[in-house]
Amino acid sequence: MTLKIVVLLFDGFTMLDAVGPIEVLSLLPDADIKVVAKTPGIIWPDNRAVPFIAPFGIADVRDADVLLIPGGPGSDAIETDIEILNWVRHIDAAAQWTCSVCTGALILAAAGLLTGKEATTHWSVLARLSEFGALPRSKRWVESGKVITAAGVSAGIDMALMLASRLNGDRAAQAIQLSIEYDPAPPFQSGSVYSAGPDVVGAIMDGTVEFNRSGRTRPTIPRPI
Amino acid sequence: MTLKIVVLLFDGFTMLDAVGPIEVLSLLPDADIKVVAKTPGIIWPDNRAVPFIAPFGIADVRDADVLLIPGGPGSDAIETDIEILNWVRHIDAAAQWTCSVCTGALILAAAGLLTGKEATTHWSVLARLSEFGALPRSKRWVESGKVITAAGVSAGIDMALMLASRLNGDRAAQAIQLSIEYDPAPPFQSGSVYSAGPDVVGAIMDGTVEFNRSGRTRPTIPRPI
Repeated sequence: MTLKIVVLLFDGFTMLDAVGPIEVLSLLPDADIKVVAKTPGIIWPDNRAVPFIAPFGIADVRDADVLLIPGGPGSDAIETDIEILNWVRHIDAAAQWTCSVCTGALILAAAGLLTGKEATTHWSVLARLSEFGALPRSKRWVESGKVITAAGVSAGIDMALMLASRLNGDRAAQAIQLSIEYDPAPPFQSGSVYSAGPDVVGAIMDGTVEFNRSGRTRPTIPRPI
Repeated sequence: MTLKIVVLLFDGFTMLDAVGPIEVLSLLPDADIKVVAKTPGIIWPDNRAVPFIAPFGIADVRDADVLLIPGGPGSDAIETDIEILNWVRHIDAAAQWTCSVCTGALILAAAGLLTGKEATTHWSVLARLSEFGALPRSKRWVESGKVITAAGVSAGIDMALMLASRLNGDRAAQAIQLSIEYDPAPPFQSGSVYSAGPDVVGAIMDGTVEFNRSGRTRPTIPRPI
């Protein structure tokens, strides 16, 4: 049976937010992934390195088993796009799983889908979840009923492997992990705001390192929640 | 000073091979990433989930500081594409770093750039490096002079962080790691053929799990080298 997966792109999305989970989920048997945007056509990621094409518009996809929403600075504009938020609510209503990566959680939150629920997002905007009545959590991913939110950017890979195991069992997820040789060996231990150390966090906070993820505000360091 | 990075795409590339390193390197100050294909235009990844656009053709980019070649089943065809191999050799000659992810190493090898050098690639085709006179190694990435080869798919993220530290120092690389929140927490420990266990490897070998990475041959399990 086909597994219908729909991924929402928008200008200013972060490419790895979307591509990590797409890579993982595309290896599930019978996965049918439809990438949509508000209207079909060229979509630029935040780094503008390479344009993607969304083959479908939101009007073309009216239901899915899995809804996946990536983040990126462009999510700010989507938080107030009534047409897209209505579509998100409509897809979510019948979906088996509704997932976000990074600031994609703020889109789910703006659609009202995280109200009263535990959720996570990129560390730099974690506190913003409260603005929408969600309960921010510092975790790699948070499962709240059928809604799964992942932390920043690369967390989508971990979340998607977990989702793959829910959909097709552990062995399928493990085989996908092996096929993408996901045996991480980061050369540093600075992937979390709690492990990175003040020098590294400071480099981001004071702007001496380019950081194009936070959108409208300077990042703030969350306390562990 | 601008850091000129060129990334070669081709039909049947694996999207995460390319997007992982692009995401990391795009956060370096003054990174100028040019994505090229044999001719400019639409490029389909192996999973055909979403088309990319290569804004440039190889004729448009004649030099770069960093050359990055992803892999995927489509790399098979590139191994015998004389025009592309000549371009790869030309860019490599003046590049500061020449890098591959996954079966992108077989393109470098076919171009003669790995002869007599230690290198790695996706575990399923590691032995093929010997066909080109390279010395296969089971490592997350292998640095041989200015040539860096990474293992399968997701290994490009680790390799790119290491490269970022070489280019701009440890603090820059660590800040990038934090900005993409790369604090991996895979739900399983099956990312390496040595840790995955016979059930998982068997699921790939006997085709009961979809596996679209190996191209022309069934994967073979490498002995640790």
